[in-house]
Amino acid sequence: MNLEEKAALTSGSSFWRTKAVAGLPDVMLTDGPHGVRKQLTGADHLGILASEASTCFPPAVALGSTWDPDLARRVGEALGDESRAMDVSVLLGPGINLKRHPLGGRNFEYLSEDPLLTGVLAVEWVRGLQSREVGASLKHFAINSQETDRMRVSADVDERTLRELYLRAFQRVVQQAGPWTVMCSYNRINGVHASQHHWLLTEVLRGEWGYEGVVVSDWGAVVDRVAAVRAGLDLTMPGPDPAGDRALVATGGSPELDAAAERVAALVRRAAAARGSFSYDADAHHALAREVAGRGIVLLKNDGGVLPLAGDASIAVLGEQARTPRYQGGGSSQITPTRLDTALGEITRLAGGPVTFAPGYDDVEAAVALAREASVAVVFAGTERETEGSDRDSWDLPAAHVELITRVAAANPRTVVVLSNGAVVRTTPWDAAVPALVEGWLLGQAGGGAIADVLFGRVNPSGRLAETIPLRLADHPAFLDWPGEQGHVRYGEGVHVGYRAFDAREQAVAYPFGFGLSYTTFAYGPAAVTVDDGGVTVRVTVTNTGTRDGREVIQVYCGKPASRVRRPPRELRGFANVLIAAGASADVSVFVPFDDLAYWDVDLGRWVVEPGDYEFSVGSSSRDLHASASVTLAGDDERRPLTAESTIAEWLADPHGAPLLGELFAAMATEGGGAMAATAADPEMFAMMANMPLSRLAAFAGERFAGQTLAKLVEAANP
Amino acid sequence: MNLEEKAALTSGSSFWRTKAVAGLPDVMLTDGPHGVRKQLTGADHLGILASEASTCFPPAVALGSTWDPDLARRVGEALGDESRAMDVSVLLGPGINLKRHPLGGRNFEYLSEDPLLTGVLAVEWVRGLQSREVGASLKHFAINSQETDRMRVSADVDERTLRELYLRAFQRVVQQAGPWTVMCSYNRINGVHASQHHWLLTEVLRGEWGYEGVVVSDWGAVVDRVAAVRAGLDLTMPGPDPAGDRALVATGGSPELDAAAERVAALVRRAAAARGSFSYDADAHHALAREVAGRGIVLLKNDGGVLPLAGDASIAVLGEQARTPRYQGGGSSQITPTRLDTALGEITRLAGGPVTFAPGYDDVEAAVALAREASVAVVFAGTERETEGSDRDSWDLPAAHVELITRVAAANPRTVVVLSNGAVVRTTPWDAAVPALVEGWLLGQAGGGAIADVLFGRVNPSGRLAETIPLRLADHPAFLDWPGEQGHVRYGEGVHVGYRAFDAREQAVAYPFGFGLSYTTFAYGPAAVTVDDGGVTVRVTVTNTGTRDGREVIQVYCGKPASRVRRPPRELRGFANVLIAAGASADVSVFVPFDDLAYWDVDLGRWVVEPGDYEFSVGSSSRDLHASASVTLAGDDERRPLTAESTIAEWLADPHGAPLLGELFAAMATEGGGAMAATAADPEMFAMMANMPLSRLAAFAGERFAGQTLAKLVEAANP
Repeated sequence: MNLEEKAALTSGSSFWRTKAVAGLPDVMLTDGPHGVRKQLTGADHLGILASEASTCFPPAVALGSTWDPDLARRVGEALGDESRAMDVSVLLGPGINLKRHPLGGRNFEYLSEDPLLTGVLAVEWVRGLQSREVGASLKHFAINSQETDRMRVSADVDERTLRELYLRAFQRVVQQAGPWTVMCSYNRINGVHASQHHWLLTEVLRGEWGYEGVVVSDWGAVVDRVAAVRAGLDLTMPGPDPAGDRALVATGGSPELDAAAERVAALVRRAAAARGSFSYDADAHHALAREVAGRGIVLLKNDGGVLPLAGDASIAVLGEQARTPRYQGGGSSQITPTRLDTALGEITRLAGGPVTFAPGYDDVEAAVALAREASVAVVFAGTERETEGSDRDSWDLPAAHVELITRVAAANPRTVVVLSNGAVVRTTPWDAAVPALVEGWLLGQAGGGAIADVLFGRVNPSGRLAETIPLRLADHPAFLDWPGEQGHVRYGEGVHVGYRAFDAREQAVAYPFGFGLSYTTFAYGPAAVTVDDGGVTVRVTVTNTGTRDGREVIQVYCGKPASRVRRPPRELRGFANVLIAAGASADVSVFVPFDDLAYWDVDLGRWVVEPGDYEFSVGSSSRDLHASASVTLAGDDERRPLTAESTIAEWLADPHGAPLLGELFAAMATEGGGAMAATAADPEMFAMMANMPLSRLAAFAGERFAGQTLAKLVEAANP
Repeated sequence: MNLEEKAALTSGSSFWRTKAVAGLPDVMLTDGPHGVRKQLTGADHLGILASEASTCFPPAVALGSTWDPDLARRVGEALGDESRAMDVSVLLGPGINLKRHPLGGRNFEYLSEDPLLTGVLAVEWVRGLQSREVGASLKHFAINSQETDRMRVSADVDERTLRELYLRAFQRVVQQAGPWTVMCSYNRINGVHASQHHWLLTEVLRGEWGYEGVVVSDWGAVVDRVAAVRAGLDLTMPGPDPAGDRALVATGGSPELDAAAERVAALVRRAAAARGSFSYDADAHHALAREVAGRGIVLLKNDGGVLPLAGDASIAVLGEQARTPRYQGGGSSQITPTRLDTALGEITRLAGGPVTFAPGYDDVEAAVALAREASVAVVFAGTERETEGSDRDSWDLPAAHVELITRVAAANPRTVVVLSNGAVVRTTPWDAAVPALVEGWLLGQAGGGAIADVLFGRVNPSGRLAETIPLRLADHPAFLDWPGEQGHVRYGEGVHVGYRAFDAREQAVAYPFGFGLSYTTFAYGPAAVTVDDGGVTVRVTVTNTGTRDGREVIQVYCGKPASRVRRPPRELRGFANVLIAAGASADVSVFVPFDDLAYWDVDLGRWVVEPGDYEFSVGSSSRDLHASASVTLAGDDERRPLTAESTIAEWLADPHGAPLLGELFAAMATEGGGAMAATAADPEMFAMMANMPLSRLAAFAGERFAGQTLAKLVEAANP
């Protein structure tokens, strides 16, 4: 390729295609991630509503709640099949930004507030998709956890938080699943646009993580094409961008441009090789969508066993959302579904008794009247709008929905509430008045059937919260720092994202991270923790003590009470999703690699597994821990070289430094009349001195701690 | 002065003196701030315990709780007199860092968690001191709100928080009181040591605030002498620093060194002119110390009118701290008092009935026995140690103290607890069991008498909390970000320091900011708010509805519900401290200059009074608001120039930008088949587009928004 061809290849030919340059074909990228959004030929590129029909799988909010990597892989495979059938080479997903705050407008497109859960699911999704020779686009890299001012706002985050929370899932997916592309985000990170963030795109992504694929821009994320290529961006979308192409040519070329063009070319070659006639089974995909939706539903409350519904119950279905489902969010992920189930229709189909319906929100009296006559009332309530491009103003349900819930619950003590929402909603105070609460998220095109499956017990609910539901929005760790102002948002809670903060502050919550009920019950045996070569294995026996088969999500949390850095009391370090037959037991084993216990040490500039005691807990939520055990790990060498800026306390704590400094102090005590010795003997004075860097002692104790002498001391202390 | 003399003059000759250079005398600086700590001649410079006797006034924690600028001025005057008598030219105080967290080891040396209260008191203290021709040293400049790793830690703070909170009191004192010196702190600020922080010492302090005095280093704060002088530091302490002097000479001189030497010379000349024989009245100063201490005591609880004690009550005084008072903290501020009152002695002196005593902490049974026999039990409890150089590990009272309180309260329902502590302590759950709680802080050498005065009603308590007492430490806004790690502490709560966060989060607290009871009661009339030329005047009539004369602290808070930036619901903007005779009324007027309503606009780089509605409240704490009124202010011009990086929404909100962009859109709709118009008509699509900077539209809408065309549009929009 000549220079012009290289420049041309690194921007698209249109909204959705690469350029056919230097004998290469062009290939298509389309929106995802919970369906293939291929715009109709001839439709305007901004016409999000005009796309070919494809299966609308459950959005990430529901997929994340399954806590099931196998399901994620199967969804990825199905999406791969549909992409192939639609001649799509790269599907723009998965979205793996952390849900930092309940008001995030795009939370429905993200998996969790936890990076491990996010990463483990996304790895399998990418593997599934790419097993069909369709490329994933891991997005949005990075720290794109809000929509407000998303094209300019700088996420101001310290490096440890970045590494341990916001980049962690990206690292896992890049290293374990090798996505064909990574999509840079719109926002800035510590002042620099992601699209031209050399540290992020080149030093970390390629240098440290070994990424060899293409970095593609989010659509419109490139501010300065030349700077972007220099930083490590390969493909600017959408295209064409003749001005940018010319600017690259004007630079006379660069190794970065060469590499970018070569990476895009490799992507195109690989994608082109996979093209060809392909089809998929829409019925099977709809069934899969229903299965995943059912597994993503979280049963939050079920007092008195209101659920599952008896087959012959008379049911009042109340709320327009039962008939007109909220099943996906707005924006680039919006799919034209191949078909659309409604909860009302599916409940009616499965019910053995009479089913009545009222839209409810505008005709509360009619709904209440139906509720009074039925043996059980099922109220559908939810958000009205969640979309890419704007964060939510409020997490409250619409007032009419709350009124419907409250009035119906007063009229019928057997009231079930089914929620439809892409991000968590406030459940207080109304949830106290209803015996059963079903978190139905946004469930995709087959969600109506999935809800019916759960209500009637055809599916025993096993979804678990992938994010905390707080009691009050003001309790949330990001509350004071959301959504930022004047171009900056401070990530003030640091590593304490989501449950990490609620647990650290010992705050009451409505429903904790990892929580979800079942129609059966589980009992946990003691936990056994063993240290192997590469990590820690946690073993526990879990027994299904009820009368129905059911799935339990066994969650392994780990804390390190004594640490050089501030750590949350416990962090999810592994989990297992196990189907256990009624009355049976399962021996569950969760392996936690040492790497997953490391913290990012800012001083050393690397991951460090601290030596010492780690406390492992096994639970069914971050607040419901059944068994725990401690292990002592040898950990990594974490000695810090002593310097002139190391404090007296640090010198005295170091095996090399302590004797050297001790000798010096002893000599000074002899020569100087004991002033230093007297100082060291007084605990308040010693506390004042202990924090002093050695270099600063010169001001107090003279030449012994200045210049040459100090340099020699430092050299001797680091043999 | 030649170059060598200039260099020499900018470091001390010893621990406490400047150099006699070029015909200038040397002058002495000593520690403060609640007394003159002049070390004994011949004592080692680190021998903090060996100093000449001087009056130990109440530490800042108590002075701050008086909310009385007049008292602060009188203390400053007295300190000036003592300094003069001891031939001290500069007294190292006041300490005006904000109390960011209850565990701050040096909180006892600071005034408040609020910058207005801090600043108003410090202005008068400095005026009082300097009225005696003794220089103040405003410290520690800046953001020195913790002791942990204080010589290295970087306080990572955004500029708005810096300006509105942590620098605000410094600005006020510099501009209103002209301190002779400002002392730079040990720590780093956003990575740069305060001692060599050019932006802080030169651009802000001198450039913006017009400071003309000397910047002196905290003792040992200078890391690089040449860099420090370049940044605006004048005087490095302690001395001598021959290596640093030589390094400055080696640079060949600079305008900064010339200016530094000239400023030190001016300081010395001014100080030398004031030297001469001087004396002070130790009895009068002790009486003043008692008066201030009495005014700093905060009555937190007084159920059933247990206090004041009847003259003939039989009193069991329990707890060693009644006999061995905690009256100041450790470190550089530690004074050798001229005398020392004890609460036990003063209670015994004032009591008309029998007084018994038990040390309590080690002999609870004996204390309980005395409590049973007495008509009232007074338990003394408090911290054991607070000192410069280390933060506190815990805010709990010693377990033995809590046990003493609990056991005594169970034995005698008329139990009074008197606390001695330099920073707030946990009051739950034991305070529920005691009817009366007196916050006695650290009160200086006459504190024992002041406590007796309050207990017997000789002083009607009027102290108010200058800091919030939370229910739990984990509730505190700085909880997750304290005290930092690996050389950095994130100020994650931003402008939400102390009550600002508790109010924003609507969290329950034990005792709110501004709170304090009296032996009388006050009633508030309606608030009248008027807008004058330079500010807002709030008027309210307050009536003493009880039978004792008493002081009320009328607090004026202001909030701005709709704002471009996130603001706390209310912030202290003024206050008045008024003595009102029993049955009388006072018309109170508090003036709030517009400047005190401004926020720091990061984009514009200046203070801005936003146009719009401001809500003023008058209260006796941040949670006990009696009257409120709104006013609309014209405010400052805050138009932002439109740029290519301004979003569509910003263009459409601007009077110049809106018609220009509208024309363009209309033309595109005509030419382009209505795609843009259709997009704008869909609310979700519009939400996605509205946040897009105009420059980025080129990727979607072509050349109209690129290069030249865009530049012309921007030019037209900023006439």
